[in-house]
Amino acid sequence: MNSMKYLVDISVEPIGTDSTSISRYVKLVYEVLKAKGIKFYPAPSMTTLEIDDITQLGYIIKDIDDTLAKEGVKRIVTIMKIDDRRDKENSIEHKLEVIKM
Amino acid sequence: MNSMKYLVDISVEPIGTDSTSISRYVKLVYEVLKAKGIKFYPAPSMTTLEIDDITQLGYIIKDIDDTLAKEGVKRIVTIMKIDDRRDKENSIEHKLEVIKM
Amino acid sequence: MNSMKYLVDISVEPIGTDSTSISRYVKLVYEVLKAKGIKFYPAPSMTTLEIDDITQLGYIIKDIDDTLAKEGVKRIVTIMKIDDRRDKENSIEHKLEVIKM
Amino acid sequence: MNSMKYLVDISVEPIGTDSTSISRYVKLVYEVLKAKGIKFYPAPSMTTLEIDDITQLGYIIKDIDDTLAKEGVKRIVTIMKIDDRRDKENSIEHKLEVIKM
Repeated sequence: MNSMKYLVDISVEPIGTDSTSISRYVKLVYEVLKAKGIKFYPAPSMTTLEIDDITQLGYIIKDIDDTLAKEGVKRIVTIMKIDDRRDKENSIEHKLEVIKM
Repeated sequence: MNSMKYLVDISVEPIGTDSTSISRYVKLVYEVLKAKGIKFYPAPSMTTLEIDDITQLGYIIKDIDDTLAKEGVKRIVTIMKIDDRRDKENSIEHKLEVIKM
Repeated sequence: MNSMKYLVDISVEPIGTDSTSISRYVKLVYEVLKAKGIKFYPAPSMTTLEIDDITQLGYIIKDIDDTLAKEGVKRIVTIMKIDDRRDKENSIEHKLEVIKM
Repeated sequence: MNSMKYLVDISVEPIGTDSTSISRYVKLVYEVLKAKGIKFYPAPSMTTLEIDDITQLGYIIKDIDDTLAKEGVKRIVTIMKIDDRRDKENSIEHKLEVIKM
C-alpha cells in the first residue's frame, strides 16, 4: 500500500537570528511548498503537508533550509510529526472532519 | 511581564488502544478544554491553546489524561510546543494573521 | 493511580538571540532542574525529566522561562513529549533498559 | 556547505497496537538504522541520528515504517526534530560535550 498518503506536520524555528519575529520565514516556507506543488494546510500551531511519496521528505526539508539559509539564517530547527496510516486513506480533508466541533 | 499569554500547541496520542482511530479522543480533549474555559484553536496538526497563567499547564494535562484514562487508555503520549514571547503580546489571533496567505 | 511517575522530555529553543549556540541556555535549564530537585537525564536530543506530580509541570516551565528571560532571551520555544503510563511504573531507569542495545 | 551534518532526533509511536509496551518497536528502529549504516545515539527521550545527506531522510522513514507495518502496526506516528546548523560542524559528539554536567 505504497500509494497511501502521509500527513506531515512541520514547524520551522530559525535560531540565532536577531529578531523574535518568525513570520517572514513562515511565508518563505509556504513559498517553497507552493513552488514544489505540495498540498498544505496552514495553522497557528504547525503546517500540515499531504505527501504521496514519503521518500521526497528529505528533499523538501533541504529546499526549505536552503531557502532560509540564503536569507541569512545559520541554524534551522524543524519540528515534525509524521502520520503514516496504513489501514485507511489519510488526508487533510479527513483530519478537518475529525476536528469539527 | 507575567501577564503575557503563552501559546501552547498540543497533540495527544493514545498508545495501546486497539484502534488506529483517535478522533474519539480528540473530541474528549476539546471537551476538557471547554469545561476549563480555555480558549483554543483546532487544526489538523495540533490544537493551539491560549494560556494566561502557564502554571496551570500541568493541571490541564492531568485533566486530559485522567479523562482519557477513564475511557480505558492506559498510556498517553502528549506532544507539546510552548511559545513564550516576552517582547510582544502573543495570541491565536496574531498567529492567524501571520499564516494568512 | 495518581502516584505514577510522568516522564517528560523537553528541549528549549531560544528565538531571536543573535547567536546560533544554545549550550549556555542548556546549562541554565539543568541548573533550574537541579535547584528544584527534579531527577533528569540529559541527552543530545532532549532532556528527560521524571516527575511525580504532573501538576507541577507549569511551574517548572515558568522557572525555566523566567531564568532565560533574565539572561535576555525574549522568545522561548519549548518542545515537550509527555509519557503518562498508567498500567506500569515508568521511570528513567526503565527507559534506559529499553534502549540498551 | 552541503557537506554539513544534520542531526535528526526521532521518536516512533505505534498507534492502535493492543499493547502499551513499545520497546519491541524501538529495537526494530535500531535494526533498520544499523542495516542502513546510520550513526545514531539512543536516549530515553529520542534517538539522535547523524545524517550527512538530508535528502535520505524520507527513505529512512519509509524503511522504518515499512518494517513496523510488516510487524502488524497499522498507524505509525513519528516525532522528529531536525537540527541544521550551517555555521559550524554539528555532530553527536559535539552535542554530548554540550550536555556534560
